[in-house]
Amino acid sequence: MTGDDELLAAALGGSPDAPAGEIAPRRQRHGGRATGERSRLPQQRPWAQPRIRYAPTEIVSADELESIHDASLRVLEEIGMDFLDEGARELLRAAGARVEAGSERVRFDRDLVLERIRTAPAEFTLHATNPEHHLRIGGNWTAFGSVASAPNVADLDRGRRIGNREDYQNLIRLCQVLNPVHFFAGYPVEPIDIHASIRHLDALWDLLTLADKPIHAYSLGRQRITDAIEMARIARGLDDATLEREPSLFTVINSSSPLRLDTPMLHGILEMSARNQVIVMTPFTLAGAMAPVTLAGALAEQNAEALAGIVLTQVVRPGAPVVYGGFTSNVDMQSGAPAFGTPEYMRTAMIGGQLARRYKVPYRSSNVSAANAVDAQAAYESVFSLWGAISGGGNLLMHGAGWMEGGLHAGYEKVILDAELLGMVEAYLDPVVVDEDTLAFSAMEEVGPGGHFFGAAHTQSRFRTAFHKPMLSDWRNYETWEEAGSPQAPAKANAIWKELLNAYEPPPMDEAVKEALAAFVERRKSEGGVPTDF
Amino acid sequence: MTGDDELLAAALGGSPDAPAGEIAPRRQRHGGRATGERSRLPQQRPWAQPRIRYAPTEIVSADELESIHDASLRVLEEIGMDFLDEGARELLRAAGARVEAGSERVRFDRDLVLERIRTAPAEFTLHATNPEHHLRIGGNWTAFGSVASAPNVADLDRGRRIGNREDYQNLIRLCQVLNPVHFFAGYPVEPIDIHASIRHLDALWDLLTLADKPIHAYSLGRQRITDAIEMARIARGLDDATLEREPSLFTVINSSSPLRLDTPMLHGILEMSARNQVIVMTPFTLAGAMAPVTLAGALAEQNAEALAGIVLTQVVRPGAPVVYGGFTSNVDMQSGAPAFGTPEYMRTAMIGGQLARRYKVPYRSSNVSAANAVDAQAAYESVFSLWGAISGGGNLLMHGAGWMEGGLHAGYEKVILDAELLGMVEAYLDPVVVDEDTLAFSAMEEVGPGGHFFGAAHTQSRFRTAFHKPMLSDWRNYETWEEAGSPQAPAKANAIWKELLNAYEPPPMDEAVKEALAAFVERRKSEGGVPTDF
Repeated sequence: MTGDDELLAAALGGSPDAPAGEIAPRRQRHGGRATGERSRLPQQRPWAQPRIRYAPTEIVSADELESIHDASLRVLEEIGMDFLDEGARELLRAAGARVEAGSERVRFDRDLVLERIRTAPAEFTLHATNPEHHLRIGGNWTAFGSVASAPNVADLDRGRRIGNREDYQNLIRLCQVLNPVHFFAGYPVEPIDIHASIRHLDALWDLLTLADKPIHAYSLGRQRITDAIEMARIARGLDDATLEREPSLFTVINSSSPLRLDTPMLHGILEMSARNQVIVMTPFTLAGAMAPVTLAGALAEQNAEALAGIVLTQVVRPGAPVVYGGFTSNVDMQSGAPAFGTPEYMRTAMIGGQLARRYKVPYRSSNVSAANAVDAQAAYESVFSLWGAISGGGNLLMHGAGWMEGGLHAGYEKVILDAELLGMVEAYLDPVVVDEDTLAFSAMEEVGPGGHFFGAAHTQSRFRTAFHKPMLSDWRNYETWEEAGSPQAPAKANAIWKELLNAYEPPPMDEAVKEALAAFVERRKSEGGVPTDF
Repeated sequence: MTGDDELLAAALGGSPDAPAGEIAPRRQRHGGRATGERSRLPQQRPWAQPRIRYAPTEIVSADELESIHDASLRVLEEIGMDFLDEGARELLRAAGARVEAGSERVRFDRDLVLERIRTAPAEFTLHATNPEHHLRIGGNWTAFGSVASAPNVADLDRGRRIGNREDYQNLIRLCQVLNPVHFFAGYPVEPIDIHASIRHLDALWDLLTLADKPIHAYSLGRQRITDAIEMARIARGLDDATLEREPSLFTVINSSSPLRLDTPMLHGILEMSARNQVIVMTPFTLAGAMAPVTLAGALAEQNAEALAGIVLTQVVRPGAPVVYGGFTSNVDMQSGAPAFGTPEYMRTAMIGGQLARRYKVPYRSSNVSAANAVDAQAAYESVFSLWGAISGGGNLLMHGAGWMEGGLHAGYEKVILDAELLGMVEAYLDPVVVDEDTLAFSAMEEVGPGGHFFGAAHTQSRFRTAFHKPMLSDWRNYETWEEAGSPQAPAKANAIWKELLNAYEPPPMDEAVKEALAAFVERRKSEGGVPTDF
């Protein structure tokens, strides 16, 4: 801390609304770190899973919510949904759904839906290889994931390129080091240079050995997802029974909207729910494209698809953990391009939360942006998404750090920008402590009218930890900032991810566990992995 | 709209969470405007004052709110506040406050405070020269103001420079053209090149003739504020009695925290409240500097100062319109620099709203950022501020468009960025219509599983107006965007403000009114304006 006088000069001497130059002298901000301070890793909040203690925002009334609910039940009753797997259809038929012979269509009476979803748990634990990184999913807990599934990757130095294992590993390392990233939402970028037949084996190996936070596996057919379950089991050193008691990975199930669940996704539900692992059931209902152009209609469709998927999880195994996913957005009606972080997106994210709470299941939202560069647009679309997710009561935030270009690339600098945003959201979720000590009557009495608080004992004993410390935000005054070359956020983010990668250390893993995991990967590779037609 | 097939190709074919390259083909976004489309003014929502129909976020419990309230009343009872004007002290003494002889200190019993604030109106109209631009202040109404009071101005072409009349006029023109800017929060930038003795006359002349939205005038002594009231009266063509029935300008009163109200500010309250014009009572309580380092303490101080100011307005004239202003933020404890749009700022903005609602007075918040450039930081600090303001139930948003660098400069490109954010917030506040038509059961039935909605009659009849259209956001696909030179948000904002300035036309003003206003300015200038010592 610099001297009192300088702090005083910096902060006093002006009012936010006062005009300059007429009466009040302007305050001047003094810049940045004290002279001679060493370069060091950017400061981070310690790892801790946040809770949303504030009541969620309700966008529609209880009656309106019931209307959306009713419309979606009518969709499932009268239109039905296509399930592209005979085994899934047979299970649903046995559970009481109406399945047309020779057709993929399944229709659900509303009582069947309402009765079946009741066994879905309101809250559960998603386990990590490091017990300190276990996550509670549901209730008022929230958890933030990495970017996932981008086909391309970009950074300021090397531009945009196709996903590859080197960047895949680096993005894992980055998200492992960043405290506000609580889990891996999938492959941060697709490692295209690993052949598809064995990609899941190498990719999960990297995820489980380079990091120790909870993981996602893709539902890309029966073999890949069972391999993933087995690798999660081995990495956690569990027997089968314990794995079934302790959900240790999750998979996102996207319906092929409108109203269809494809074969690999259905196999994902069948395999994962049977083993009591986590399903995140997320319709991708772009209003005006795969869903009605009206938000209420798109939400009714989203809700129908989500409920149908949740029903299947509970038919497979009552009590299996499942999350209600909302991903309704709009398209640019000029071009058909999906749009993200829009006012439509915000409201549907919040209404999705209202629906999930109605069914007492955890809610998944996302941090999304359509921006091509890490500019103001990337930031505002992301913060609007976070507003939707957090005020919507989101329990699981997909694509929390690094999602750019509507998901078409993962960005190194965006990872840092988003980690800054997520850290700020975590701090926003910290309760404001109100007690005699924090109300500070004595400090106000001591300082009195016209004084200042820099030197007060109340300030001195608290200032080091009083406020959230940013990692990326540049609060230097204009002159100091200009002398430093007028750096903008992406350049600083670029320096930060390099520092963090330098500081990265792999988490410890029991040698026997690591050998067992390696042996599994080796065996499955020697078996050819998963057959592909290329 | 391009053809169905192209829209389909653009929007279908991928899921948000699906991996690339293994199974699902990736969606490709198609770019921007149709070929041959003419350049035109950026699209804007029509002017309309928004309402916040969603329940505000409550950060602290009712009990905790009471504790802050109690602490602030204790501050006013036991510590008191310095009022640097004898007339104000005399009025307060007559109203029952305890004034020490020979001292500026005024102490208030809590019953006096609670009784006096009761006459403050919960809602009122702030009138503009154009009746279509009148604003309701209070209730669930919200209104967004321009940037105000910046000593410097900046744009991409000319960099940062001292405020001057040319830029002052241009920023007025811009905010007049931008629909989501509902009022002028002060001088967008200080026109330093007008001598201080007559600056208010020329500056208000510009404001009243270049624009027709509600205005602010500075409380810089008795003469300037009475000149401003007179100019507002003339510009609206009113007699004195009507002006007193129709609040036609507002002034922000900043206390000199801690616990002091300076002479010019007090004269502002005395003159404005006496004429039934609007006071926005805003303590500038930076936690750790002019207020306790703890948020609860800073809020207790804010509340004490706000209540004391509100009491004075009601002592001067019961029923006079007054707004509770919240501007509590934190400082960078390394440098003393004020920080804005922080997690601390968000929570105090929302708790400020809780306090204002407790007293049933309208609430003022702000759109603030400490960023020096129109980069990601400028955007995220602003959106976090807006989250605080909107979820805090803010009725009057100061510095809505253009505030940069903690208020030290007004930015042309930031005006555009903020107008984009404010337009998005307006759209977010649009109710989601839920009825049989929007629930779109028939459209879902028509399209069915696996189809798409582009060609559906339900879509075709609605797509042109279904979604908010951005002014600044770039939704083109990466390739198209890259071919266009990879433009980032500030460059586009730069082009937009130039287009808007080109399109600007002064609002009509009755010739007789204009002559009367000009005559007043001329007379007051010939009298020397307001004496200064330079």
